[in-house]
Amino acid sequence: MNYNEQALKLHKELRGKIEVSARAQTQTTDQLSVAYTPGVAEPCREIAKDKGKVYDYTRKGNLVAVVTDGSAVLGLGNIGPEAAMPVMEGKCVLFKNFADVDAFPICLATQDVDEIVNTVKNIAPGFGGINLEDISAPRCFEVERRLQEALDIPVFHDDQHGTAIVVCAGILNALRVVNKQIENVKIIVNGAGSAGIAIAKMLLAIGAKNLTLVDKAGAIFRGMDGVNPEQAKMAEITNPELQKGNLSDVLKGADVLIGVSAPNIVSEEMVRSMAKDPVVFAMANPIPEIMPEKALAAGAAVVGSGRSDYPNQINNVLVFPGLFRGALDAGAKRITEEMKAAAVYALAALIPPEELSPQNIIPKAFDPRVSQAVAKAAADAWKAQN
Amino acid sequence: MNYNEQALKLHKELRGKIEVSARAQTQTTDQLSVAYTPGVAEPCREIAKDKGKVYDYTRKGNLVAVVTDGSAVLGLGNIGPEAAMPVMEGKCVLFKNFADVDAFPICLATQDVDEIVNTVKNIAPGFGGINLEDISAPRCFEVERRLQEALDIPVFHDDQHGTAIVVCAGILNALRVVNKQIENVKIIVNGAGSAGIAIAKMLLAIGAKNLTLVDKAGAIFRGMDGVNPEQAKMAEITNPELQKGNLSDVLKGADVLIGVSAPNIVSEEMVRSMAKDPVVFAMANPIPEIMPEKALAAGAAVVGSGRSDYPNQINNVLVFPGLFRGALDAGAKRITEEMKAAAVYALAALIPPEELSPQNIIPKAFDPRVSQAVAKAAADAWKAQN
Repeated sequence: MNYNEQALKLHKELRGKIEVSARAQTQTTDQLSVAYTPGVAEPCREIAKDKGKVYDYTRKGNLVAVVTDGSAVLGLGNIGPEAAMPVMEGKCVLFKNFADVDAFPICLATQDVDEIVNTVKNIAPGFGGINLEDISAPRCFEVERRLQEALDIPVFHDDQHGTAIVVCAGILNALRVVNKQIENVKIIVNGAGSAGIAIAKMLLAIGAKNLTLVDKAGAIFRGMDGVNPEQAKMAEITNPELQKGNLSDVLKGADVLIGVSAPNIVSEEMVRSMAKDPVVFAMANPIPEIMPEKALAAGAAVVGSGRSDYPNQINNVLVFPGLFRGALDAGAKRITEEMKAAAVYALAALIPPEELSPQNIIPKAFDPRVSQAVAKAAADAWKAQN
Repeated sequence: MNYNEQALKLHKELRGKIEVSARAQTQTTDQLSVAYTPGVAEPCREIAKDKGKVYDYTRKGNLVAVVTDGSAVLGLGNIGPEAAMPVMEGKCVLFKNFADVDAFPICLATQDVDEIVNTVKNIAPGFGGINLEDISAPRCFEVERRLQEALDIPVFHDDQHGTAIVVCAGILNALRVVNKQIENVKIIVNGAGSAGIAIAKMLLAIGAKNLTLVDKAGAIFRGMDGVNPEQAKMAEITNPELQKGNLSDVLKGADVLIGVSAPNIVSEEMVRSMAKDPVVFAMANPIPEIMPEKALAAGAAVVGSGRSDYPNQINNVLVFPGLFRGALDAGAKRITEEMKAAAVYALAALIPPEELSPQNIIPKAFDPRVSQAVAKAAADAWKAQN
């Protein structure tokens, strides 16, 4: 199937993958008088008296804004807010289809951090959550941090934390397949942007000890020049062996490669240089660092990618619908580290040991248990903390 | 029927009068690969090459933002963005149910003109139109003007122009019922805020000669002190007899009273002081300037109000869904004066002369001909100009 051609056809036929539907009827005078004026004044008055009632009388509690500035869309780069729209609509479809969350695309005409923060703050009253999407590093870190400080609703940069959660769940199960322990393996994360850094942090949080981030300038090590502040912070807590050199240098003998970087930059030879039974997650989108069939041919024991047309799709869609579902259900004011960790373990646990195999380390996106399990884990974690 | 109680019940049951629906399916790997990654990258690339294609591949061309700062909601005043949400959701329901326009509520956490303008400009890439709503005068004038200058999509302040269009259509038909000519009648518009001024301008545009605006300080006349710049401009082109005094003074002998002001401020005695067969549109919401039954008892020949539970509901719902439908269908870059005038005549013409009566001067909101006629008139007017 030619997905590009099919996608163009589908998008042209649909003219939009989302729509805004009415939940109230307005076919009679009475219906109109209740859903609109004069009756509508009454819920307005109630909310004016007690702002919290906006969750009782409006859609706020189920509405998530999917916000982008179009600066880092898929692997396509800085294509702007209009060209980002199909991806944002796609995310909204997944929110709805997988977790009944009403998500709406907000594609911004600015890439200035202050403007992004102000704009999202200004539109926040009608939303129950903010999903930041495809905003390039390092601006995305500041945007997320400032919005989390300013707002009393969950703010979640999916490219960081959604990716990190699903990768960690996949790595936990992949390591079970090859019978290795996360404490003992050598992990290379190629790509030290928002996703790579978030993945590294979360892997450390669930037990990884020997992990090195690699960027265009090579392996990131303590004291390295030319790194941004986020990378400098990571250099303090990663690369314990102070490895230097490019990806092919540091990949030698590694047990795990996680690529969140660029298409076709990993060769079969590089995979062959890894330790026995290596795990390769090649997640560049839409074209991975190495195509799965090539990685397998080069001896990879378990291969994951971001693509839905191969086994082991390591895709955020396994996380963000359920995570927001759980946060909204629990009335969470933010997404905590505990909620994210709970989501990792809940997701991994959906493949019981007897079903684990090189082709089956992570549930399928349309497995209905996924969003339920993630939602329950996140909601329970919030409730346990509050 | 107790609308307040019913409204509270309905709003609590629904928890939101709108929702975001998915138009794309994601139940199989192939569907996911086409609606989302990897296929979705292809429409993104096409739009990145030619921004105009965003109308072909996304919902932009059918999406309208219903934007408020919550500063002048119905007759409830400055109740803030959260409390405004039920009204905005209600408007979105009407957009959808009456004209299949996908409208989405944007309730702003700021009432600063610069911030409002910047925020709306920043979120505009994903929308095909902007409906401004319940923003208090005189800020609403500047917000609308600056957004119209900055954006290449229709920007329409419904409280001004939607109200003006429906009032003018109603007045044309009411004057036919009482057999008077618009050129000859004395008209009082009580309330010189955004709606009152827009109504006055449009009445002058369709032929009115003797029209006086009245505000809290009384009749507005040329050279008056203490008026805002918009009112001062209106003083130059209205009140030809330089009438002074309060509403009850200037109402004496008037043929038409249009109230867009406050509840219960017009007495039966004031109506009795008007000319023979007076027309009274008492449009304060939810409680009119005088209840229709009282106005009729005091001798009004034709009475209109904003309420859906009385005959002759003079409500913007007759205008905004169809007007945006027409503008979106025609690819209009803005809403022109010609489009608005065409909407007035199209709306009035829906009640043929033989059906006109004191209880039937304007179509019902749920008459399916309404939005079609307004849409066609607006689209044709745009095409004739371009």
